[in-house]
Amino acid sequence: MINENPHRRYNILTGEWVLVSPHRTKRPWQGKEEKQSIAKRPSYDPNCYLCPGNTRASGATNLQYDGPYSFVNDFSALLSETPKEVFSEGLLKGVSERGICKVVCFSPDHSLTLPIMKVEEIQNVVKLWKREYEELSEVSYINHIQIFENKGDVMGCSNPHPHGQIWAQESIPLEVSKKTEQMKKYWLDTNQSLLQAYLKQELEARERIILENDHFVSLVPYWAIWPYEAMILPKEHKRSIKELNEEEIASFAQIIKDLTIRYDNLFNCSFPYSAGIHQAPTDGDPHEEWHFHMSFYPPLLRSATVKKFMVGYEMFADPQRDITAEQAAGTLKSLSTVHYTIE
Amino acid sequence: MINENPHRRYNILTGEWVLVSPHRTKRPWQGKEEKQSIAKRPSYDPNCYLCPGNTRASGATNLQYDGPYSFVNDFSALLSETPKEVFSEGLLKGVSERGICKVVCFSPDHSLTLPIMKVEEIQNVVKLWKREYEELSEVSYINHIQIFENKGDVMGCSNPHPHGQIWAQESIPLEVSKKTEQMKKYWLDTNQSLLQAYLKQELEARERIILENDHFVSLVPYWAIWPYEAMILPKEHKRSIKELNEEEIASFAQIIKDLTIRYDNLFNCSFPYSAGIHQAPTDGDPHEEWHFHMSFYPPLLRSATVKKFMVGYEMFADPQRDITAEQAAGTLKSLSTVHYTIE
Ligand SMILES: O=P(O)(O)O[C@H]1O[C@H](CO)[C@@H](O)[C@H](O)[C@H]1O
Ligand SMILES: O=P(O)(O)O[C@H]1O[C@H](CO)[C@@H](O)[C@H](O)[C@H]1O
Repeated sequence: MINENPHRRYNILTGEWVLVSPHRTKRPWQGKEEKQSIAKRPSYDPNCYLCPGNTRASGATNLQYDGPYSFVNDFSALLSETPKEVFSEGLLKGVSERGICKVVCFSPDHSLTLPIMKVEEIQNVVKLWKREYEELSEVSYINHIQIFENKGDVMGCSNPHPHGQIWAQESIPLEVSKKTEQMKKYWLDTNQSLLQAYLKQELEARERIILENDHFVSLVPYWAIWPYEAMILPKEHKRSIKELNEEEIASFAQIIKDLTIRYDNLFNCSFPYSAGIHQAPTDGDPHEEWHFHMSFYPPLLRSATVKKFMVGYEMFADPQRDITAEQAAGTLKSLSTVHYTIE
Repeated sequence: MINENPHRRYNILTGEWVLVSPHRTKRPWQGKEEKQSIAKRPSYDPNCYLCPGNTRASGATNLQYDGPYSFVNDFSALLSETPKEVFSEGLLKGVSERGICKVVCFSPDHSLTLPIMKVEEIQNVVKLWKREYEELSEVSYINHIQIFENKGDVMGCSNPHPHGQIWAQESIPLEVSKKTEQMKKYWLDTNQSLLQAYLKQELEARERIILENDHFVSLVPYWAIWPYEAMILPKEHKRSIKELNEEEIASFAQIIKDLTIRYDNLFNCSFPYSAGIHQAPTDGDPHEEWHFHMSFYPPLLRSATVKKFMVGYEMFADPQRDITAEQAAGTLKSLSTVHYTIE
């Protein structure tokens, strides 16, 4: 069977390959172990610049918010006032970039994370994402909106208050261009959403499905790179979260909660990851080919303290993984749906 | 000036873009700090599976080697005995992959690193790399040879003994394919090496050059992603390290030492990085377009303990950096050429 020997798998969304080395988990580990932060956080931290009513590093003060809350990032990587400039000299080429960066607090409660928030609270987060996507897409020069969350300090999160970010910008980033190209090609060839066809195949095979509810499925994609990478996708063809109705929003919130609970239960820790929603660019094209999805890239491999490093070979050659997507899906599927901190 | 506002820069080697946000270094950091290992290591560690004469996890015993030493990785991600298999079912596509993974110990002395090794010792490392590249390219099914080093536990290095790795394989990895395509296009258009033309421009501009000696230059590429990323490239057009003569090998070893000393002097620590040599694939094509180079991707940004995280936005959208390539080159250039541990 191909699954036991080293092989490469094709990613239908990017047109790229991942190297899979299933036999490699046996190797000994004398390398880095992460420190685990197990201290329970208070519901309010006077030193947190994201808690309600607190003053941020910039001097601005947060509202006394009681649901999800968004504001423009004080240290935005992209700015809306950037003057148009093109730099070109011989082989060098640069161009100015405009954008808007926002912070999205998921909850006023400093101690929470998505898996331990109530489903209704997560629904409100999804509604805020949706409103932000709609509003930012109205800004004439914004052609792409990236909603994401960096969870845990291993993932570069600079503040444990439950929050994510939105970076909206003029250009369409590479990861999104690759997916647009692949989906468009399939759409033009078959008049079908690539991810819907893929989902159909996965729902028949049942080898990589983790969870399913009325409107959404969560699975480990065949071409997953990160050990416990997962994708959440709507069963129906939807180009963006803008197209979700109340009932679908509830279903989406539920599957986010259920997946992240299993993540926390995997190693009995607050499971770190970067998650992001890939959806139709807002560049004026109808993007009928787009099928939105939310991906989770979690770094942990062996335990709460030992992660997979995407370094040398992965930086210079191709992504590489040790366990197979099927093993990861099997493990995640087998875990309890009740959060490990709840007796 | 474009360098002060958010902008994107084009990478001539990959055809991709990086987002640069020069104003962003001011943001406060309450995130992860790495633990610094400052304990001096002994020259011999009885528990190290790379020290001369020691028995490895696999049960094999290292020779009593006294210079650089290579052997087949006990936990190789790629194996030469992999049977040929193709997996294809609907949208799923996989294919078996053959290869050879080697470990290259740089020195028998457990306590050393490249910047504190003697130039003559580094020359021997380069000679071993060259021999490995030559020998592995003789294996009929090997079409690409990736030589790399993961230095420091932050870079997933599982053993502090000075060593690197070689992963040789059937397929040509994505990073190399992208570069081959860009170099080939330029070669066919102009009958010139892309990197040689680029180097000429850099040597005139003198804005991103860190170091230079008889045969090599070290610079921060215009499109660098990592904060203190650097590239070492030969002044003459050489497709691979196979084409280096004795004098050029000495020059290469010297510039590796000089660059890594400055790295250590940047934050007064043993500077972590992944380094890799990109060179002509060994697939039978003459690859006249190829201009070999060694790249260093170091994660540290602010200090010995605070690194740049390539997470959320970078995973889902585009790579992003805070300081400009020119700032990084200026800083690296200004540092002492004497290692900070030497009084
Ligand atoms: O082979 P090592 O040193 O055990 O492992 C290290 O380098 C490999 C090649 O870049 C990576 O796949 C691993 O994640 C990393 O920990
Ligand atoms: O914006 P933050 O949370 O300070 O920063 C974090 O997310 C950003 C967007 O993915 C990254 O560029 C930073 O490296 C990371 O530390």
